[in-house]
Amino acid sequence: MAGNSTASLSNSFSMNGGNGTYSYSKNSIVQRAASLTAEAMIEEVIAESLDFEKLSMPPNTFRIADLGCSVGPNTYIAMQHIIVSIVRKYKSKGLGPQLPDFQVFFNDQTTNDFNTLFTSLPPERQYFVAGVPGSFHGQLFPKSSIYMVYSSFAFHWLSEVPKDVLIKHSPAWNRGRIFYTSASDVVAEAYAAQFAKDIDSILNARAKEIVRGGMMISLLTAVPDEYHYSKSGLGLFYDALGSSLLDMAHEGIINEDLVDSFNVPMYVTSPKEMSRLIENNGCFSIERLKLLEYGSDLDVPLDTGKHVTHIRAALEGIITAHFGNEIIDELFDRFDQKATVYRHLDASYRKGFLLFLALKRQ
Amino acid sequence: MAGNSTASLSNSFSMNGGNGTYSYSKNSIVQRAASLTAEAMIEEVIAESLDFEKLSMPPNTFRIADLGCSVGPNTYIAMQHIIVSIVRKYKSKGLGPQLPDFQVFFNDQTTNDFNTLFTSLPPERQYFVAGVPGSFHGQLFPKSSIYMVYSSFAFHWLSEVPKDVLIKHSPAWNRGRIFYTSASDVVAEAYAAQFAKDIDSILNARAKEIVRGGMMISLLTAVPDEYHYSKSGLGLFYDALGSSLLDMAHEGIINEDLVDSFNVPMYVTSPKEMSRLIENNGCFSIERLKLLEYGSDLDVPLDTGKHVTHIRAALEGIITAHFGNEIIDELFDRFDQKATVYRHLDASYRKGFLLFLALKRQ
Repeated sequence: MAGNSTASLSNSFSMNGGNGTYSYSKNSIVQRAASLTAEAMIEEVIAESLDFEKLSMPPNTFRIADLGCSVGPNTYIAMQHIIVSIVRKYKSKGLGPQLPDFQVFFNDQTTNDFNTLFTSLPPERQYFVAGVPGSFHGQLFPKSSIYMVYSSFAFHWLSEVPKDVLIKHSPAWNRGRIFYTSASDVVAEAYAAQFAKDIDSILNARAKEIVRGGMMISLLTAVPDEYHYSKSGLGLFYDALGSSLLDMAHEGIINEDLVDSFNVPMYVTSPKEMSRLIENNGCFSIERLKLLEYGSDLDVPLDTGKHVTHIRAALEGIITAHFGNEIIDELFDRFDQKATVYRHLDASYRKGFLLFLALKRQ
Repeated sequence: MAGNSTASLSNSFSMNGGNGTYSYSKNSIVQRAASLTAEAMIEEVIAESLDFEKLSMPPNTFRIADLGCSVGPNTYIAMQHIIVSIVRKYKSKGLGPQLPDFQVFFNDQTTNDFNTLFTSLPPERQYFVAGVPGSFHGQLFPKSSIYMVYSSFAFHWLSEVPKDVLIKHSPAWNRGRIFYTSASDVVAEAYAAQFAKDIDSILNARAKEIVRGGMMISLLTAVPDEYHYSKSGLGLFYDALGSSLLDMAHEGIINEDLVDSFNVPMYVTSPKEMSRLIENNGCFSIERLKLLEYGSDLDVPLDTGKHVTHIRAALEGIITAHFGNEIIDELFDRFDQKATVYRHLDASYRKGFLLFLALKRQ
């Protein structure tokens, strides 16, 4: 993706690699906290819902995939926890002596920093390792070859910016903004339609790859059903980032058309919406769908700088691809300044929500 | 590996990444030419020896591994050729409608440049991709999960420099040299013993991973049985490289102890020796073992600069790890100068030999 191209982001969007200040590996603390909340649920759902009969168990090799794994360390922790939970389940069923080999497929975009991922692997792991480059919106594995899919904070990234928000003078043209939460309903609807299409692609691809009885556990950013999307704290931060870009355009540092053609390809779903999309798809049964709240105990005043750094780790790649890397430092300095007004943000905005989802291949 | 450490090279030795002048991907032409010679044999041995009954065919997924694949493009060409040969075999047996999915596991050391490997994959491939970091001297895949292993110009790399050649005043101490071909017999024997140990580890690991009836095809640098190892053209080039290092030590640019503790961890086998090692191991039957000659039609005078550049692509990583990267350019300038004396090398030295090996898991 270069200039103001509207091409699919599928092959160009990945988290910051390496271990530096703005690397994803150093800035995925929020994800880690949320994953901790989910760990007990993962163990519970594996104990209750992973179905050895339907899996025609025991397989020789139990293949697990983490989709959108980034560069660690969260993925290593999650994979370890899932394997421990599966081993516990085997033993509780008296199948301890028939434990399979475990093979973990770490997946992310082709542009993900797999070199960092591979060199940081925990040395004392109990599984065989493979890295799989490519978009999880398409099929990544041979048919019926995977027993467990995990995905954490990845499925809320869209495969591309909804086309309508980029078309000048279309009702959904998202001029002067980079996200939908403070835009008109028609912009939000374009985002929702893209998300629905993407989730359907994700489920169809997984339906091919996952054996009958196999499971998919995913964690997504979400909001409660009763929230209007405009109440998103993340949306406020993206507005401040968009406003910083507009300021730079008005000062002639960047081209305003470039700002208008830039939108963050991310969508925040709700439990009802997600449940409807899974039912419409029809390939999976819903074993668990639960909204977890976190972050309401965040310090007051809010450490806005930490959030800015976190957003930088996630978005620097697509911003650089769109605007070039010369503007990055200045842009994030301005964003950091603007974001300070959110230090005393109302508690309802400060909350984070995590949708825990466990599906079974029917 | 830093300083004069004698630690195992397993985790520190890989070809130059990227696409630059000294990258492996730009300098693997000799390997490519040799692989071409072998392609017809690969197709033939798959047609004749790949045994669908013993493989309890057809599997859902036909898993192929390239061990020591480096960063392409040779590995893509080889994988494509193997898959085409397998598909042809399926069709010739009337099994066309039951064609499995193909999954290719690209393996190399953890320090290999997997980012380059993944971003250069052929877009129109007929297989699912996975990258597997780690040493092929150990087990890399779950038990009985692989149907075909391929390895080109990789098994002649030793897992570590034979310990005895590094011990001061031991009979095998390889002082003032970096290779065994012009050293005393006891040095060559230490290299041969390390190679025997490594091949046994490689075969034992593959015996676990490959299903019964599955195959392993490998191409190795070799010499005819009747050749004395001192007749190796490659050995002459390594001697010139070693001599350049010694010169730099005598001029005080590097420490002479560092030169004495540096040895190229590579061994050139012969058909008889390889066949004996496989029989001693006992896990595989030999379907083909054939020495192919190439390079005897190389231009006279020999383009020694091309050979120097090729050796740089292969060895820069371990030389840098041992000596630091400050000396690299000067070292290879000197090596390039010295190597010019080989322009009119006798034809017997100019020949290259390739051992084609096809084994079947018993």
